[in-house]
Amino acid sequence: MKGRIHSSAIVEGETNLGKDCLVEAFVLIRGKVQSGEGCYFGPSCLVQGPALIGNHVFFGEKTTIGFPSQQLVKQFQKGRIQAPWIKLESTRIGDECIIRSGSVIYAGSQLGNNVRMGHNVLVREQVKVGDNTTVGTGVIIDGKCAIGNKVSIQSNVYIPWNTQIEDHVFLGPNCILTNDKYAMRYPYELKGPILREGVSVGAGAVIMPNIEVGAEAIIGAGAVVTKDVPPKAIVYGVPARKHDDVPDTWKKPLE
Amino acid sequence: MKGRIHSSAIVEGETNLGKDCLVEAFVLIRGKVQSGEGCYFGPSCLVQGPALIGNHVFFGEKTTIGFPSQQLVKQFQKGRIQAPWIKLESTRIGDECIIRSGSVIYAGSQLGNNVRMGHNVLVREQVKVGDNTTVGTGVIIDGKCAIGNKVSIQSNVYIPWNTQIEDHVFLGPNCILTNDKYAMRYPYELKGPILREGVSVGAGAVIMPNIEVGAEAIIGAGAVVTKDVPPKAIVYGVPARKHDDVPDTWKKPLE
Amino acid sequence: MKGRIHSSAIVEGETNLGKDCLVEAFVLIRGKVQSGEGCYFGPSCLVQGPALIGNHVFFGEKTTIGFPSQQLVKQFQKGRIQAPWIKLESTRIGDECIIRSGSVIYAGSQLGNNVRMGHNVLVREQVKVGDNTTVGTGVIIDGKCAIGNKVSIQSNVYIPWNTQIEDHVFLGPNCILTNDKYAMRYPYELKGPILREGVSVGAGAVIMPNIEVGAEAIIGAGAVVTKDVPPKAIVYGVPARKHDDVPDTWKKPLE
Repeated sequence: MKGRIHSSAIVEGETNLGKDCLVEAFVLIRGKVQSGEGCYFGPSCLVQGPALIGNHVFFGEKTTIGFPSQQLVKQFQKGRIQAPWIKLESTRIGDECIIRSGSVIYAGSQLGNNVRMGHNVLVREQVKVGDNTTVGTGVIIDGKCAIGNKVSIQSNVYIPWNTQIEDHVFLGPNCILTNDKYAMRYPYELKGPILREGVSVGAGAVIMPNIEVGAEAIIGAGAVVTKDVPPKAIVYGVPARKHDDVPDTWKKPLE
Repeated sequence: MKGRIHSSAIVEGETNLGKDCLVEAFVLIRGKVQSGEGCYFGPSCLVQGPALIGNHVFFGEKTTIGFPSQQLVKQFQKGRIQAPWIKLESTRIGDECIIRSGSVIYAGSQLGNNVRMGHNVLVREQVKVGDNTTVGTGVIIDGKCAIGNKVSIQSNVYIPWNTQIEDHVFLGPNCILTNDKYAMRYPYELKGPILREGVSVGAGAVIMPNIEVGAEAIIGAGAVVTKDVPPKAIVYGVPARKHDDVPDTWKKPLE
Repeated sequence: MKGRIHSSAIVEGETNLGKDCLVEAFVLIRGKVQSGEGCYFGPSCLVQGPALIGNHVFFGEKTTIGFPSQQLVKQFQKGRIQAPWIKLESTRIGDECIIRSGSVIYAGSQLGNNVRMGHNVLVREQVKVGDNTTVGTGVIIDGKCAIGNKVSIQSNVYIPWNTQIEDHVFLGPNCILTNDKYAMRYPYELKGPILREGVSVGAGAVIMPNIEVGAEAIIGAGAVVTKDVPPKAIVYGVPARKHDDVPDTWKKPLE
């Protein structure tokens, strides 16, 4: 084992950290964890393998990598496995990622390179996040979501199961995507929205289930989107209506 | 003491854990804590008794059970008690509960059986949560709330002091209940809404203080509810108005 | 070193705690930290100096004081500094503050006296918070914000970079201030709103960038504020319009 590991840290199992890693006090790393060079594991963080971690990754204090799915927790509760972290799927964190304090990445999810997260972010199972994407503090990404490259997700955004977000999308603070059309009153297969490349969603907007928002469209702050939105449309209001087209001089977010 | 307790964990006082419990690294359990069989205490979690914990309960890493009320914190600040956790009220957690990482349950609150919580949930003092209720990530339940059985609270919902939620209610993501009619501008006794059995509230909706929502009514996403809602009404918009009745073929949530 | 320090706690560097401080298990205090008397450092909390802490401050479990800016994290990732906490700016916490579990204060920010925070609050760099201000659970205060005295910020409020909030302001739960007029589609210097003395903002309201809300105005729940608001006006709706003036008998919040 190379790098600097605090005497109170616990590094178990077949873990293999690259050179110049810094493991702080009260860290617990277990399972088959393999990391690149120069990673930082902040105080009290928890990494449960199998996990493949790139170079120069920053894990703030009290982050969790490799949280078990509900199925595994229930298997533990029924006495079928000795601990909830025994049969985890493999997690992958790309180079240069920044995962700030309190954030939790479920086992089996994958972050690309240079993903930068705020604090207390939740990424559930079977999620893929592309390269160079930023995810703000308090964001929740539920399971089976696909998030593209150079996406900018501001603080407190909620993204439900089965949502698809393409490259260069911008989600303003506290906006809400939904996936249950009937609020548990009628049978419905949960489907989140599809946000095409370059869409911008304003602060606090709500997007109804299974809606498609066309490429480069803009949804105004506080809008409630109940119908598909055409590409390059500007929509706002409750319910949202089209008021204009995006001017040709405007670019895609993070272009 | 039975079960497996990591050598770095601290188990103090008159704690009595049932068989097959697993206590992970950096856990602190203190005060009179009594648990059933097969419980999991994740890394860095904190349990401050008195507490009565059922069988097969899962506490994710960094959870807190037995957080002190503001009164106790202030007594400590004034030097009247030696530590803020000395005179805690008793907390009760039912069988099979799942409390995920970062969640905090105040001393004196009670969870029924099979309550399943996401991450970073806050439950303040004098709260009762019924059986088989689910509480999403980031939900805040302030003090003196009564939450029924088979309630489904989605992520990031805010529930203020003195709120009453009956059985089979569904609260969509990020919806907001309120309890101060005059926003601190005029004297007002804080009163949250009353949500009767089987109500569904859409994502991001706001319900004003002291509103009663009748049984099985549906409140649309993004609605601002300023008046009482009749049973089985469908209301939406800003301000919310009745547009329809719930069809007879629809069921209650989680029925 | 005076006070009671648990044997598992790590207190490094030139730290100097006042008498009757209580340092719990798994705490890490490092750098030049100076505290007054009677402070409480809860289990697993992290304090990275330089920091000047007043008397009778309560840090709940898993709080962080002195989180590094993104610039420092990136310098660590590039191998230019040995740890991300080496060159932190000095943090200041006034007397009698209550910082509850999971909250994070960035290095270089300043809290006045008797600031009371909920859980999982985030205060980023270069923020000043005045005396006797309360900040609810899950609130995010981004960098370079100035928050006055006797401000009441309810749970889950989002406050972006470069926001100015004067004394006696009330922000209802989940309300959203914004600072990017074009949602990353067109060049714009990020400017948050200015909330003048005694303003009240209702639950879930959205305030657009660079808006000035005049003294003692009231913004209704769920409003979307797109234009400056005159002093003492009552506005609501989407978009918000003036409907009335604040009655003379009403006071400022926390007056």
